[in-house]
Parts: sequence; C-alpha cells; structure tokens
Amino acid sequence: MIPYKTLININRGGRQAIYIQIANRLIELIKYRKLPPNTKLPGSRILSELLGVHRKTVVAAYEELTIQGWLISLPQKGTFVNAHLPILKQASLVGESIRKNLTSSGFEFKRNVSLDRKFPQTCEDTYMYVNDGISDGRLAPINDIALIYRNLVSKKHITAHLAYGTTYGNQTLREELVTYLNETRGLNIGIDNIMITRGSQMGMFLAAQLLFEDNDYVVVGHTNYSSADTTFEIARAKVLRVRVDKRGLVIDDIRKCCETHNVKAVFTTSHHHHPTTVTLSADRRLELLNLAKTYKFAIVEDDYDYDFHYNHAPILPLASHDLNGHVIYVGSICKTVAPVYRVGYLVASKSFVDECAKLRRFVDRQGDALLELTFAKFIKAGYLDRHIKKVLKVYIARRDLFCSLLETELSDFFSFELPKGGMAVWVTLNKAYSWETVTQEALKQKLLIVEWQRYDMANINHNAIRMGFAAYDETEIHEFMKRLKKTMIEVSRLNGALAKG
Amino acid sequence: MIPYKTLININRGGRQAIYIQIANRLIELIKYRKLPPNTKLPGSRILSELLGVHRKTVVAAYEELTIQGWLISLPQKGTFVNAHLPILKQASLVGESIRKNLTSSGFEFKRNVSLDRKFPQTCEDTYMYVNDGISDGRLAPINDIALIYRNLVSKKHITAHLAYGTTYGNQTLREELVTYLNETRGLNIGIDNIMITRGSQMGMFLAAQLLFEDNDYVVVGHTNYSSADTTFEIARAKVLRVRVDKRGLVIDDIRKCCETHNVKAVFTTSHHHHPTTVTLSADRRLELLNLAKTYKFAIVEDDYDYDFHYNHAPILPLASHDLNGHVIYVGSICKTVAPVYRVGYLVASKSFVDECAKLRRFVDRQGDALLELTFAKFIKAGYLDRHIKKVLKVYIARRDLFCSLLETELSDFFSFELPKGGMAVWVTLNKAYSWETVTQEALKQKLLIVEWQRYDMANINHNAIRMGFAAYDETEIHEFMKRLKKTMIEVSRLNGALAKG
Repeated sequence: MIPYKTLININRGGRQAIYIQIANRLIELIKYRKLPPNTKLPGSRILSELLGVHRKTVVAAYEELTIQGWLISLPQKGTFVNAHLPILKQASLVGESIRKNLTSSGFEFKRNVSLDRKFPQTCEDTYMYVNDGISDGRLAPINDIALIYRNLVSKKHITAHLAYGTTYGNQTLREELVTYLNETRGLNIGIDNIMITRGSQMGMFLAAQLLFEDNDYVVVGHTNYSSADTTFEIARAKVLRVRVDKRGLVIDDIRKCCETHNVKAVFTTSHHHHPTTVTLSADRRLELLNLAKTYKFAIVEDDYDYDFHYNHAPILPLASHDLNGHVIYVGSICKTVAPVYRVGYLVASKSFVDECAKLRRFVDRQGDALLELTFAKFIKAGYLDRHIKKVLKVYIARRDLFCSLLETELSDFFSFELPKGGMAVWVTLNKAYSWETVTQEALKQKLLIVEWQRYDMANINHNAIRMGFAAYDETEIHEFMKRLKKTMIEVSRLNGALAKG
Repeated sequence: MIPYKTLININRGGRQAIYIQIANRLIELIKYRKLPPNTKLPGSRILSELLGVHRKTVVAAYEELTIQGWLISLPQKGTFVNAHLPILKQASLVGESIRKNLTSSGFEFKRNVSLDRKFPQTCEDTYMYVNDGISDGRLAPINDIALIYRNLVSKKHITAHLAYGTTYGNQTLREELVTYLNETRGLNIGIDNIMITRGSQMGMFLAAQLLFEDNDYVVVGHTNYSSADTTFEIARAKVLRVRVDKRGLVIDDIRKCCETHNVKAVFTTSHHHHPTTVTLSADRRLELLNLAKTYKFAIVEDDYDYDFHYNHAPILPLASHDLNGHVIYVGSICKTVAPVYRVGYLVASKSFVDECAKLRRFVDRQGDALLELTFAKFIKAGYLDRHIKKVLKVYIARRDLFCSLLETELSDFFSFELPKGGMAVWVTLNKAYSWETVTQEALKQKLLIVEWQRYDMANINHNAIRMGFAAYDETEIHEFMKRLKKTMIEVSRLNGALAKG
C-alpha cells in the first residue's frame, strides 16, 4: 500500500470541503500512476483512520470519484482505479514534482509584431515620467463619482441594471451624451447614432474590425497616434502615410492615395493632431469631407482632447459637418475625468453603430451599466462641466509654467510652440543630440523617457517627442525641469567630449 | 444683409459660451452658403446690437473664426468670409434643413452574418423570459461591493489606481485569483499565468484572435454555446462539429478531425456542456489532453458554471491536469455575482497570457482597476465564498421546484434530466410539436422564448432548448409554469385541430 497519509495532505482551514480535497488528491495519484489502473483502494474505514477524518468523508470522496469515472466500485469486492483510463501523456514529470507556472504553450499562436511596443513599466515613486499627455488623477472627482454610485446602488430598482443589458450601453447615458455632444460639439445626432464604448480605444477597435478586409488601406499622418496605427494593423489594414504640416493633414496627399489605392478610411485627430498638436484648418476639413464623399471612405475622427483648449474655443469636429455618414467620431470621458473610468462613445450613422453594437457582444458582452449610469447622472448634474472648468484652469497654469521653464532653462536644447490645447507640448530636440542618449542620461536622473521611437513611426527623423505637462503640479514641474536640465548638461558634456575625442 | 437676428439663435442658459454659439452658427451659415465666400460680415457693433449681446462677444466670435480659417480680417476693410473655402459637397440639403440622425453610412463595411443573431429585447415587466441560465441579480451582494468600493475610493493612495495601468489587470486581484483558483479548482498556476478580462467572453475573444489564421479550424460540439461559435468565426476560424453524448464531447470524432484538418483549437465547457449540461467524463478528459499534445492544438475551456453544482462536488477543470500549456482556461465572476460586473480571467501559459495582454491594450486599453481591486477585497474577505454558499442553497431549491413542476404538469410535452449543476435545464420538446409554434403561443401568454434556434446551430433537430431556473423565485416559477402550461394546452389544441383538418 502506498503511503496515503503522506501523499494526501488535508488543509483543514481551506476553502474546499475535506472530502473534495481527498478526492482531488486521489485524482492526482491516479493521473501520475502512483495509483495505477486496477489498484484496489483501501476500505473507507482504513483510509479514514489513516487520514484522521470521519469515515463518511472518505465514502463521499470515493462516491465522487466513481461518479466522475476515476474509480469503479465493485459490490462485495471494493473500490478500484478505473482500468480504462488513458495514460496522461502530459505527465513528463511524475508524482510529486508537478510542473508549476507554465511558461510556454503547447500550441502555436499569432505573435503580432506591431503589438511588441515598449510601454512604461511601473517603478518606484522617486522616478518621474515624460508622458504622452495624461491627466492628473489627483484632480479626478472620484468622491462625487463614488457618492453617485453608492446612491444608485442603494436604490431598489437598481437590480434591473445588474443583469445582462444592451450592447449599445446604458440608455440614460446615451441620451445624456446626445444632448451633451449636440450642445458642446455642434453635432446633430439622435440616440440611434451613439453607442457607449470603453474609452475611445474600443471605438477605434470596433470600427477598424468592421472597416477593413485584407489589402484595404487606411491613411494616417506621417506622424500619428501610434496606437491607432496598431489598431488598424490588427484589423489587417495597411497603413499609408501622408504629410502633416502646420495646418494638419495634407489633403492633396490623401487625394493621391485615393487615386492609387483602395482607401477605406482616413484617421484624424483633427482638434490637435497627435502627436504634433496642430489643428486641422477649416478649408482642409471641408476638403477632407468632400474627398470622403468622392472616394466613399470613412473618416475616423478621434477627438481625444476636445475638452482641453486654452487660447481659443474648441473647434467643432468634422462630425459636426458630416451629412452623409462618413465620419466615425470617437471620444471619451476617461481622458477628461480619469483613465480608469473607461467610458467613451462612438458616434456614426445608425447602420454603422448597429453593426458595432453587434460586434461588441463578442468582445466583452457589454459595458458596466452601473458605472455608465453613474456617469449619466454625473453629466446631468453638471459635474462634468464643473470638473472641466476646474481642471482647465489648473492645466493652463501648468502649461505656462512648463513651457516658460523649457524656454528659459533649456532653449539651447529644445524648441517648441506653445500648444493651444491638449496636455502635451511637441518638443523638438536640437539635432546635435539624439533621444537615445538623452533617454540614457535621463534615467540616471530618475527621469524616464519611454517610447520616444513611437513618435516617429515613419522614420522621418523629426527628432521630436511629446512631453505631457498636465499630470504634474507646480513643485513637480520644477523638479522635472531640474532633472531634465541636469540630463541635458550631461548630454552636452558627452557630446563635447565626443567632438574633441 | 441676411437676417442675422433670425438665423443666429442664442441659448443663454446653454453649456456653451455665447461667443462660441455665435461662431458655430456662423460656421453653419458659411458651410451652407447662406454666407457665400467674400461676403462682408456686419461690423461687430452692428451685429452685437442685432443679437443683443456685448460687442466684445461678437469680436471674440470673429477672432475665433479667423483663427480657424472661416473668416479673414482685412485691416480698415472689415471681416469677410474666406474666399478659398471649398464648397461642402455634403450639403445636399442647404440652409435650415440640416439632415438629422443619419441612418446610413457613406462607406462600405463588413456585415458579419454570424453577428445577426436575435437577442432578447427589453420589454415590459409583465413578460417572463425563457432564459439561457442566468443568475438572479436580486441576490447580488451589491451593497457589500458598493461598501468596499466606497472605502477604497476614500483612501488617499487610491489615485495611483486612477491612471493608466497594466493590461494584465489589477495585481492584487490577480494574486487573489491565483490563490482562489489553485485552492478551489486544483490549478497550479502563478501570477504570470493569469490576466483579468471583462468576463469569460473577452477571454475567448482575445484567445480566438491570437489562435486562428484564415483556414484554421476549431472543433466544437454539434450542440455548442453559440456565442463561442460566433467568437471563433469573427476570428476567421472555421467551425467543425463533433458529436456530444452523455459523457460529453466524443473524442474519437475530434481525432478524426485532427487527421484531416488543421485543427488549432477545441472548445469545451467541460464542467457542464453548453447547452446540454452533460459533464465530460474522466477518461475523455485525459484523452483530450493527450490528443492536444499529439496534434498541438489548444483547448479553450470555458468553465462558466464551476461554482454551481448541486448533487456532487465540482469537477476539476482540464486546466488542472494540463502540464504542457495546452489549456486556455476562461472563467468569470460575473456569472456568479451579477452579469453587470464584467470581471473574468484567462489562465494559460505565460507566453500566451503575455500576448493576450498585449492585444488587450488595443481592444479597450485596460480594465477598471477600481472595480478589480474591489473584487480582490471581496474575495479576500471571504464574501465570494459566502455568496456562493448562499445562492447555491437558493438555486438548488429553485431547480427542484422548476423540475418537479415541469415533470408533474408538463411531462406530456417535455422531457429532461435533472441537471446536476448550472442554472438551466436541457428541455426536449415532444417531436409532435415545434418550438416555432410554442414560441408563438407563448408570446400570447406573455412568455418570451427567444433564440431557440441557437441551440441547434448544426441543425440536428434535437428539438431541445435550455430553460434557466435560477433567475426566478418560487412565486415566479409557479407563474412561469402556469404560462407554459396554458401555452402547451393551446399548442396541443392547435395540433389536434391540424391533425383533424
């Protein structure tokens, strides 16, 4: 008889009933042939004494395994390991030494190289990041949100929102956003034109999945929001790049693309081009819409920073001029409130929204109806408007401080234009230096510059990156600039040494 | 001069500053050629008097439009509509009659027929549904969850969770689930083997996207969870069907598929086959794992109802026997707690989890870290265990009532086996009748049977559907059966009339 007492460990404080623990341990012994086929198991009385458990517990375990097919019970004869169980070929290591924490898979799968981007790692608090332009979570009105959430949950009728719901998103939030977007962005939409998504990213993802077949093309700027590139590539689109100048995407370049390729969509962040922050001019907006009509392509408009404008009013999106259903307009509340709240929207013709809502069922079934309802109340009560007003004041002050320090302290190294909106500055490094060196030296100052390559997906060597200013307060911006200055002094010294050497 | 006062409506209580309202209205007038190129605009004093606003407001609007490129300002001469604006071709309807609520799109997109399933519509409360086996939202511990959530939000350090986070999901929840799954399901995983998803649906979606290239095959049962079929088809896999008998998927059929096709994955709901509720037997589990090793395919195991077992202990998933990284194990907490909380997990080899986490960034960027952290605390505090114990008692009573009424009142029409777990019964309709007729008659009794076709995607005419019992309390189950009985009496009468006629 094998040493059952040693092999069957019972955890008396565990989550699992003891009879299940015994059963599961016996399964392991059977699988790894410690208990080969046809082995007779000890009687329940004997095993219960060995293990120090009630006899009924062992009986229950044996019954369990008999139902599952691991054991067979022969009247008058006893309980045996099922003789017809196949040997588990997987058991390269038998007995006790079960391999833990599998590293590699036993099958092939796609590895999409465009997914292999380097993203910021979480690290100690003592480091500072050069970020892409993120908001400051510390300003997020989470207490307001939590209060609304708690009040909702305490209501009896709320159980209706706990079950499976529509893939279009919460009806109340859709209604609220229709009003909000029509009022603030000059849209002219009804409830059929909007679905709630998890941030603008999901809007882009759904749209891309429906837009492209193999060998279809999408046109983007030669500098572009790199996550958009990847989202389109995942959907099997091929990316064509056109110039971006001080007035945004160059429309003549897009026209040329349309003449020679099967262009299914053009991607634009018209309010402030990502990453360079320029605004698409009025005439180009109209031209782009006309071109869309001529060539029947979609315009994917990501209005990621509409709420953040400092020197002038926000500019109406292309979607506000779209009368023939060309624009797929995606936006989000996450960026404005806090990234963790993945609440966004996709606005388009009813037929396109309907298809997106169908597809969404198979992506993650639906959104979080409670959170969506919370945001509906948040917007309706005017909290969103109030929050935007509040952070705008803060961010404009941060932009001004950030840019004035960059100008006064570091103009030998960097050039930039004061951004009229958004949460980042487009900073060009003097071509005497490289971001690679800067990144290395910055690390020594506990300043992390990640992904600088992603701002130049087309390799045009503009030598610029985005520097977010919104997430740091006054003291932090001073600290940030101190580190950046130390970095550049060292980079400069190294350059000098190199030149001499 | 055009009637500015009539054409420029100002909403003084609106969200937008008045100067922006004036600017946006002028844009419309320019777009639709009410103000053609080169038109001279009235001086700011004149327009301000016409509109009853401060002169500065008009000046600000003009400046705004000049910056955006709609107007040009000539010193000493005045303000003019930019002569170089293209005509917006979209303006099929000019002037006032702007088309609202676009219905059709101006571009082509994919319409995936497999998405065109009919899903239950929300309707009046007086209707009852025949559901697929959903939980009862009224039992959901939402107050516990809201309390934890509120406590979290009140902590200062929480702001760290408001920013962008890892696409693997909240670290604390992953750690908690590793312990939980290892303890309750015999898994042997570490933190590298798990990522948090939005329900098991997102786990399946991510896995499918990575598994299949064009012309790859996935094997499923001839009855199968139809959303899985669709998820695989969206990922361009072709579905092969094999028999399902009283012991689950027929492994010999799968072997034959592997011999003739490029099988990349087999899908199983091993605990209780969806929809028929049978359990995959021990020998077949081992055979399936062996086959996976031989043919290097993935096993996508959706353990959707592991927590719900009534007559015996839950059976360890295939994932607990997987030593070579073949199993992709997806599950969720939503089904157990409430569908609205889209918290699930994907468990696999590290290499596969890593790739899923990369892909997820482009689907919806990340999960809801606050909600994930809430669930980590919910599990750690033992609330999940307690909740499962509580609902198990309720559901077993509902199953017994539901099945006994079905047996005593309706055995002329329906046959079934008592399900050992899950939240639904697999009910076969006497072949003298059709679900089409039953559905029509049931509607008259305010009993909605939707999607009955989806239980027979392979058209094998088993004449069975799932009937969920868990979402209805005792009174409701009686009411449900009353309606079903009335329906069947009428169906029977119609059948008789038809036979005579």
